[in-house]
Amino acid sequence: MNIAAAQSGGPTCAINASLAGVFKAGIRSGAIGTVYGSMNGIEGILKDELIDLSEYIKCDDDLELLRRTPSAALGSCRHKLCDYRTDIEVYEKITECFRRHDIGLFLYIGGNDSMDTVAKLSAYFIDNQIDIKVIGVPKTIDNDLCETDHCPGFGSAAKYVAMTVQEITRDSNVYNLPSVTIIEAMGRHAGWLTASSAALRENGESAPHLIYLPETCFSADKFIEDIKAQMKLHKAVITVVSEGVRTADGRFAAEEFQSAKTDAFGHAYLSGVGKYLEQLVSDRIGCKVRSIELNVMQRCSSHISSLTDIEESEAIGEAAVEAGLSGQTGVMMTYKRLGNAPYSYEIGSVSAQLTANGEKFFPKEWITPNGNDVTQEAIDYVMPLIQGELPPIMKNGMPQHFVI
Amino acid sequence: MNIAAAQSGGPTCAINASLAGVFKAGIRSGAIGTVYGSMNGIEGILKDELIDLSEYIKCDDDLELLRRTPSAALGSCRHKLCDYRTDIEVYEKITECFRRHDIGLFLYIGGNDSMDTVAKLSAYFIDNQIDIKVIGVPKTIDNDLCETDHCPGFGSAAKYVAMTVQEITRDSNVYNLPSVTIIEAMGRHAGWLTASSAALRENGESAPHLIYLPETCFSADKFIEDIKAQMKLHKAVITVVSEGVRTADGRFAAEEFQSAKTDAFGHAYLSGVGKYLEQLVSDRIGCKVRSIELNVMQRCSSHISSLTDIEESEAIGEAAVEAGLSGQTGVMMTYKRLGNAPYSYEIGSVSAQLTANGEKFFPKEWITPNGNDVTQEAIDYVMPLIQGELPPIMKNGMPQHFVI
Repeated sequence: MNIAAAQSGGPTCAINASLAGVFKAGIRSGAIGTVYGSMNGIEGILKDELIDLSEYIKCDDDLELLRRTPSAALGSCRHKLCDYRTDIEVYEKITECFRRHDIGLFLYIGGNDSMDTVAKLSAYFIDNQIDIKVIGVPKTIDNDLCETDHCPGFGSAAKYVAMTVQEITRDSNVYNLPSVTIIEAMGRHAGWLTASSAALRENGESAPHLIYLPETCFSADKFIEDIKAQMKLHKAVITVVSEGVRTADGRFAAEEFQSAKTDAFGHAYLSGVGKYLEQLVSDRIGCKVRSIELNVMQRCSSHISSLTDIEESEAIGEAAVEAGLSGQTGVMMTYKRLGNAPYSYEIGSVSAQLTANGEKFFPKEWITPNGNDVTQEAIDYVMPLIQGELPPIMKNGMPQHFVI
Repeated sequence: MNIAAAQSGGPTCAINASLAGVFKAGIRSGAIGTVYGSMNGIEGILKDELIDLSEYIKCDDDLELLRRTPSAALGSCRHKLCDYRTDIEVYEKITECFRRHDIGLFLYIGGNDSMDTVAKLSAYFIDNQIDIKVIGVPKTIDNDLCETDHCPGFGSAAKYVAMTVQEITRDSNVYNLPSVTIIEAMGRHAGWLTASSAALRENGESAPHLIYLPETCFSADKFIEDIKAQMKLHKAVITVVSEGVRTADGRFAAEEFQSAKTDAFGHAYLSGVGKYLEQLVSDRIGCKVRSIELNVMQRCSSHISSLTDIEESEAIGEAAVEAGLSGQTGVMMTYKRLGNAPYSYEIGSVSAQLTANGEKFFPKEWITPNGNDVTQEAIDYVMPLIQGELPPIMKNGMPQHFVI
């Protein structure tokens, strides 16, 4: 029997570590012949674009390079399966491809849309007595998958955000005049990544002075009042804002600045809340103001990824193979946190159906009553996930990457 | 006799290493009593805000932390002195402050505006037989100071840009569809930093596929033709553009997108050429397109600074003290490159007047004839400057910083 793995959704610094984990567990197991990789997620199955990963991962050095390379080595897709009762042809095509390569276990590393695929595909195989197992491996910098304490990829993104806000804080403090710096972090609906910037207070920083998440109602007037109040306390006010903050009517705060683009899944295309708030401060307060969008660097700066995140991401990839070999299917692997002092966790699994299309929001009780900061619980939650570093393997003063 | 140091202009990852060098050489020298730091550049002298640096740098660990901390520990300013014949009071105030603290040597770490201060202040002291030496220590991520092979701070910024473009290249390649990524790098008038992104070709990358510098005329029509041509060769086209690219009429390419702000020195306030070009590609080609502004992270990401840059920046700070003690004044310290294989350099000095207010542009002969790329000479120039790493001193998974 062979196995196949694929990567889907937005890339992270850790999705390749999970692939490395799958490969390692596959090679280690006596039960598996070949570990295949499907190019561009489920699309590679539909197009029969499978590669034998051992042709690319020939030694431990290759595996190590894969672990430390950002983005998805196998490529990604945003392809959502319809129900098999609506379009059975797609499912038959997938089954044919798997049969042709003697695939008995398929590992899908992705976010909630990918878990939808895991749920649908495993249901089809069960309903049709086809003995192919399907296991989901979570991944998202947004940390918004249900049923798991946290998500692979989040720790590295959180570490990047905290560290970068810290460095920007140094930069923002050089001039002897009042200033406002607005840092825009990713997060359409969930504020986990934005909230993680509060971690740097553990290093004695007062910044960030204001934190706005999509989970609270955003008001431009209150924002300006908050800024004015902080300007009395700090020369350089540092604010971190989720791209997805919304006003009371449910519209994105920066909606008037946006063109009404949507991505392939119908998600609203977002950018620019930082620029919008910069303009607002400039108009209403008139002080020095700068906005900074952390952009894709949040999800691809593997040169400063969290060792904890990379190790956990690899471990959950390995555990997924073991779960599939032990007969599980239609599940997503999960982390359960056992404690913070010392930090420990265990890997489990839940029905992928429970996580498909769902979103785990940042807890309301971890947001301060005035809606512009997070509590110590949020900091305690994120701290263990950003510990340790895994520097890239350098060549010519720049990282080496694993490229297929 | 005591000495004083100050930092001025935009911060970098290396300006604190130069301050560390000044402190080290000052302490080492038997001739110097106290090493003072002036808060917020020359403004600290005018306000008599001098601190005894040994109260903050108490041990080697403190000095090491200073070396690895981004931005300007003493704060910065954008204060330009007028000629002493126009306003002698300012000069008398500076002299009083220096006399009060028995300062015989003033080190000013900054860019071309700071070198103007070095030139004016030293001329005033000479013309009035005041025995206070003034030495300039160069610093700018723009690398545009005349008379020196390169500038402290540039190597770290160049390393950040090359590495980040490499990581973004991985991120941009995940989907199996044509896309354009536009990365906006700093550089109002000089394209050194943007050009340094070409370094990553030494690691076998084809990216960046297009590079646009302020030193060539920018045309929106030609840009679109260039993009179309590259889209035939690469699925994900990666473009790096200087913030300061200009059209044939001398206007910034994105001028219509800009508000007409200027900074304290009358420099045009720039942002948004990336967003402008993103819109242009969206309108004229209609493919997936994203723009990314590297913003202040280019100058403050000390977690990935170049060891070569930090060591050279420290060495030039030390050499500045020695130059002043040996009787030089009114000069800016310089690097002279002796060779690339192996890389070696020596530190010298030139009249600050020669560098004050001047700008060293990227050589036209290092730009390819079609104006959208740089030659191997540019890569050979930047490679030695980005070698080596100096990881931050970590605490709680985040860097520790030196803060006064």
